[in-house]
Amino acid sequence: MAELKAASLIRDVPDFPKPGIVFKDITPVLQHPEAFHEVVDKLTDIVARHDPTAIMGIESRGFIFGAPMALKLNLPLVVARKLGKLPYDRITEEYSLEYGTNTIEIHSDALKKADRVAIVDDLLATGGTALACARLTEKLDAEVCVFAFMVELSFLPGRHALRGYNIGTLIEY
Amino acid sequence: MAELKAASLIRDVPDFPKPGIVFKDITPVLQHPEAFHEVVDKLTDIVARHDPTAIMGIESRGFIFGAPMALKLNLPLVVARKLGKLPYDRITEEYSLEYGTNTIEIHSDALKKADRVAIVDDLLATGGTALACARLTEKLDAEVCVFAFMVELSFLPGRHALRGYNIGTLIEY
Repeated sequence: MAELKAASLIRDVPDFPKPGIVFKDITPVLQHPEAFHEVVDKLTDIVARHDPTAIMGIESRGFIFGAPMALKLNLPLVVARKLGKLPYDRITEEYSLEYGTNTIEIHSDALKKADRVAIVDDLLATGGTALACARLTEKLDAEVCVFAFMVELSFLPGRHALRGYNIGTLIEY
Repeated sequence: MAELKAASLIRDVPDFPKPGIVFKDITPVLQHPEAFHEVVDKLTDIVARHDPTAIMGIESRGFIFGAPMALKLNLPLVVARKLGKLPYDRITEEYSLEYGTNTIEIHSDALKKADRVAIVDDLLATGGTALACARLTEKLDAEVCVFAFMVELSFLPGRHALRGYNIGTLIEY
């Protein structure tokens, strides 16, 4: 996996968002069209193998990858957004953070029964948001066919949180 | 402009985000691949005429259109984000809302001097965020070659706020 151009572009930013955390800054990948194309192409290949009928992008960096993937595959793009951002009828899922909880929502008409959903984000850390998106999918009687992330922080329990689901990642730390 | 499939998909949601406001919900466009492709293609055509060297997407719906446009044009994607989301060295611009202010940021190394930037968002309302993104661009000695929006609310003063700049929109209310 180390041959991906994106891997050489992601930069460590120490003490963000708080002291002791080293943040993986993916924005340099977006600024290199060749690297950005490569990531989108490879994530699309992963996802396509699972015959999805919809792509779900997780706000907001998941939109950056999910939108071009949906277009490449000619599939609907479903946006999973933070509390209070979606205007129409919606369903909601709460998940735990280190301190407190967060909430993610999708529109109630965003998926059809038996849809096969590929859930996309830039990075898999603890997996809390991704798992909440799976719960939202299942509440609408659809299923998650695969999760796709550009980056996986394998020292965090994201893969464990999503056990039982298919997971594809491109760059591992 | 009325022939665009997207125009028939955008739905009005009354009293969102607060009583008396009719919100233009664009999410149905994203769920129709043909309509989504059409919007991205047309916005890309508008932008391409101004010879951009970078695409700036405004968080977060601007990412949904800006990312595929940047890929189609093989240009860097710059992300303009709300306060506190970008990890690296950044520049900041405050702008007024109806009550209070909001802040938008880009990374200081997101643009090169003399870059020609196409700024992309889903919707032009008052133009406050878009104008703040222009200021950020100019702070880095780059220039805005065009603004591109899927929707323009022409009963609001967005076009006036951005006077002097090129503006392309697809659907007008």
